[in-house]
Amino acid sequence: MSSSRVRSRTQIGIVGAGPAGLMLSHLLARAGIDSVVVDLRGRREIEETHRAGILEQDSVDLLAGTGVCDRVHRDGHRHDGIELAFGGGAHRIDFQGLVGASTQLYPQTDVFIDLADARERDGGDIRFGVTDVSVDGLTSDTPAMRFTDADGTAHEIRADFLVGADGSRSLCRREVPQARRTQYFREYPFAWFGILAEAPPSAPELIYNHSPRGFALISRRTETVQRMYFQCDPAEDTAAWSDDRIWEELQSRVGANGHTLKEGPITSRTVLPFRSFVQEPMHHGRLVLAGDAAHTVPPTGAKGLNLALADVRVLAEELERAVASGDTAPLETYSERALGRVWKAQHFSYWMTTMLHTLPEATPFDVRRQEGELAAVTGSTAGSTYLAEAYTGWPEGR
Amino acid sequence: MSSSRVRSRTQIGIVGAGPAGLMLSHLLARAGIDSVVVDLRGRREIEETHRAGILEQDSVDLLAGTGVCDRVHRDGHRHDGIELAFGGGAHRIDFQGLVGASTQLYPQTDVFIDLADARERDGGDIRFGVTDVSVDGLTSDTPAMRFTDADGTAHEIRADFLVGADGSRSLCRREVPQARRTQYFREYPFAWFGILAEAPPSAPELIYNHSPRGFALISRRTETVQRMYFQCDPAEDTAAWSDDRIWEELQSRVGANGHTLKEGPITSRTVLPFRSFVQEPMHHGRLVLAGDAAHTVPPTGAKGLNLALADVRVLAEELERAVASGDTAPLETYSERALGRVWKAQHFSYWMTTMLHTLPEATPFDVRRQEGELAAVTGSTAGSTYLAEAYTGWPEGR
Repeated sequence: MSSSRVRSRTQIGIVGAGPAGLMLSHLLARAGIDSVVVDLRGRREIEETHRAGILEQDSVDLLAGTGVCDRVHRDGHRHDGIELAFGGGAHRIDFQGLVGASTQLYPQTDVFIDLADARERDGGDIRFGVTDVSVDGLTSDTPAMRFTDADGTAHEIRADFLVGADGSRSLCRREVPQARRTQYFREYPFAWFGILAEAPPSAPELIYNHSPRGFALISRRTETVQRMYFQCDPAEDTAAWSDDRIWEELQSRVGANGHTLKEGPITSRTVLPFRSFVQEPMHHGRLVLAGDAAHTVPPTGAKGLNLALADVRVLAEELERAVASGDTAPLETYSERALGRVWKAQHFSYWMTTMLHTLPEATPFDVRRQEGELAAVTGSTAGSTYLAEAYTGWPEGR
Repeated sequence: MSSSRVRSRTQIGIVGAGPAGLMLSHLLARAGIDSVVVDLRGRREIEETHRAGILEQDSVDLLAGTGVCDRVHRDGHRHDGIELAFGGGAHRIDFQGLVGASTQLYPQTDVFIDLADARERDGGDIRFGVTDVSVDGLTSDTPAMRFTDADGTAHEIRADFLVGADGSRSLCRREVPQARRTQYFREYPFAWFGILAEAPPSAPELIYNHSPRGFALISRRTETVQRMYFQCDPAEDTAAWSDDRIWEELQSRVGANGHTLKEGPITSRTVLPFRSFVQEPMHHGRLVLAGDAAHTVPPTGAKGLNLALADVRVLAEELERAVASGDTAPLETYSERALGRVWKAQHFSYWMTTMLHTLPEATPFDVRRQEGELAAVTGSTAGSTYLAEAYTGWPEGR
């Protein structure tokens, strides 16, 4: 079949048209570097993937500051703090007061739409809904990306460098020989039961709620649709949970700390698994990995999307150097620069998770110690600042 | 035998003549309140108990400021920081620069000697080497302390209030009925192998060393005797460790982060078990608990002695109120005030322990995450300050 393959060339071949792949393509275009992005999913399918939407300050600046769209400022909700609820009360972490930064609540779906629109507007080459994607010749000077497009035409695109931005089930990641990479992971003995509810917001800011019945997170989507989560068994069956049972569970958890939720019809129920994962290094030959393809964090610290955008901010700089020099050394530099932040974010996500969730094997000592830690963090300006600077995102280079 | 018992009276009966019991007796005497202190151990035996000796600023102030002895300033070593060694290098936590406080290295044995001398000087009633100690009538208005003195005479001393300052194997603690108390604990799957060595100091400040082979702590006793520890199995047999084998293990652990130790003959080998324990509340009827009798922390945070002294600082105040009013309400206030600090210290000790030690079940992910945490803490002024304020001791009332 290779005889019928349409052959072409680009500077950077990108597998994955999620926020990481599209933002990279956008940043490269601004630097005058061509790229082609392919994705197995259709555009509609990606738009319907509901994911967390808490953007760090630097993520917001990247979207608005590089001309993607300033809708994030218009339609997002700026949050200047969060509440940590435990031991019968609530304690605010004042991001603005502590570190002079904020987060923006803006759904990942909208980040994707903004990026896809911007690439379309700027004439970017994005191919959705392709099949049979593969990469090849990673350690040669002309690695290739192969796929069949939505019309059934087979393509082979040769590039200077390839980027695997193809998410947590990355196929690019698997192309790095076992002897050349280390995979780190950790499973957690719980998951999140996530709901969308048609109800007004229950609180002006997010509530991270520690309780004897387990963790709950009270977030929001819009003024009329709310996003809430509660810690559950990874094997939990959503069908076993009526609206009434869900509200009773949530009210009980936040009620322990003096909150009451505004209820409404529940329109979505999902169980979100927890997993920590890192593949090192984040480069091999002329391939680099970015975003979920290289690392997964549990959702408690809201770091997944932000880490992907931080990756490509650094990667665009290093690819510019690599294209100019024809050399792979900048890919190694990218891996080192990105991994420093990745491991800090891995720790932060693990810390927020283990500080706030009830572990199945937890003794009463562990629960009291968690409350002691929450009291220490919220009672100390330094402790609160340490949390706030991680939550709002460490400035680049620190 | 009760017919032959010598009966007497005091205001406060104290079981345990360790630092907590003696300091309490000293503080009460300064407030014009009488006490009798009894201990099963002889004075010599207590003096020969070698324990950690890192004093928080407030502990130093309590010793020197209440006229116990200013030898702590003369003979102690002031430490303005510690080193956290990991990932191939060392990172200083600058206590003075971050929180304007220091710690003092001064052996617990010397704290005991200073306190025992001060009580003797001031005419305090301390009975060492007694037997058959018991407490009775805890919920009556005249609780009693019974014992047989070193000369074989049986005593019964009635008091307004009793204090159990009788250490981690406290008999007083057991007199609180099960229905009236909760015990919290946690075991750890490792211990410390502690040595004393005749050698010059290897470093100007303490080194907390994270390494692939496990934790090590480089401390000092004097200019010519050094105290060092390394993480080991709780069942480790000290007899199986020659001087050479110990130095090899220690050098390998600190060598991973660029340090070299000055060696010398090893004069003491002990395995120190790790345990976290709290009994709540810290009062029952007219009995209160203080120090190790109420709580044990693993040694990593150096909080044991400091927590005991913090307890009795608060307890002396509340007992003064209780004696004046004849009421037990101040004992409840003491328990609440003390427990706030106890749980923060429990968390800090757990945090330092789990951040720096290798857990037997640790995956490569866990080790990298620890390094990520250590990088986050040392790389952030807020994170370093949060650690420094806990290590040097939270100011009273915070």
